[in-house]
Amino acid sequence: MSSLIGVPRGRFIVLEGGDGSGKSTQARLLANALSAELTREPGGTPVGEKIRELVLDPSTPELHTRTEALLMAAARAQHVAELIEPTLAKGTSIVSDRFIASSLAYQGVARGLGIEAVAVTNELALDGLTPDLTILLRVPAIDARDRIDRDLDRIEQASLDESVVATYEELAAADPAGWLIVEAVGSIEDIHAQIRDGVKERLGL
Amino acid sequence: MSSLIGVPRGRFIVLEGGDGSGKSTQARLLANALSAELTREPGGTPVGEKIRELVLDPSTPELHTRTEALLMAAARAQHVAELIEPTLAKGTSIVSDRFIASSLAYQGVARGLGIEAVAVTNELALDGLTPDLTILLRVPAIDARDRIDRDLDRIEQASLDESVVATYEELAAADPAGWLIVEAVGSIEDIHAQIRDGVKERLGL
Repeated sequence: MSSLIGVPRGRFIVLEGGDGSGKSTQARLLANALSAELTREPGGTPVGEKIRELVLDPSTPELHTRTEALLMAAARAQHVAELIEPTLAKGTSIVSDRFIASSLAYQGVARGLGIEAVAVTNELALDGLTPDLTILLRVPAIDARDRIDRDLDRIEQASLDESVVATYEELAAADPAGWLIVEAVGSIEDIHAQIRDGVKERLGL
Repeated sequence: MSSLIGVPRGRFIVLEGGDGSGKSTQARLLANALSAELTREPGGTPVGEKIRELVLDPSTPELHTRTEALLMAAARAQHVAELIEPTLAKGTSIVSDRFIASSLAYQGVARGLGIEAVAVTNELALDGLTPDLTILLRVPAIDARDRIDRDLDRIEQASLDESVVATYEELAAADPAGWLIVEAVGSIEDIHAQIRDGVKERLGL
């Protein structure tokens, strides 16, 4: 990807993790610490927010999984072209709460479309962009089990979460240079400090 | 693609052509003649119409070409899953005013994303479906030139149309069994008769 002449390109850092892993909080803290721009998916641009509304609108009848995956990719295409690329090109780093790995996990695995099919579909959206670092916030499995015990109605949701988390683990294992796994235990400050150290070690930021 | 047990699957026929080729009229006449269901792209379903509105909404700021291509594919995914496949499976044929070839021509060539990139992106939307026959309504080039001479402001539009029409010709030449070219000259009835004869010869309908 190109950069403005003479301006060092910004770095693109993504936080991923299951629901309740605290990634939105940690994304905000990391963006502040790095003076980076904070963004999120799905959404991130006015068009992306409209697409997000369309996906989440309860009056949208029977949105097919394939439709949903393509709408997510469309929102990502706009996010990359309108916000992420221009920001990185002017030398500002970006921290995003979720990115492509969320689609691979949710639409690819949890909803059964297949990781490869979702990855291929997203090539047009990414236009060659890959994160410099994706941080997986790993929540101990025992916590997830506690949540199931507390609320039996949520077993289905928890089972979905488990396949999502398992996919993040597989993606991280397959690309250790591109991923950093952080154990999401301890206080918010403790976890932030681990993330901050990891980013310094990996990216020199 | 599967069919209900004991019910012969319907046939899927698409009309393509440049603006002013009369394909919407001919699609309607053909659907009537075959007692087939008539549909169109973009759109075709409630979700597809919402996506169409989002694409055409003038308040949608700077929709990137990649976003547009993915939104078109999302509308198509819903069209295939919600309308086309179930209709064919119950034995009813479908005539569609535009389908995948329009995306290959408009987003792939006219807007420069590349035919291959758009084709790959649409694999998720098509889920293995291909039209039984795509009919290209070929308008003589001299007519297009006349239109340019009459309205110089439309040269850019005409140039876009020319690359679209050239793409249809290439797609038809590369897959002669899948395409039928009809010369769109003469009366509406003459052209309909040509289409009707071609469909009978190719599909036995």
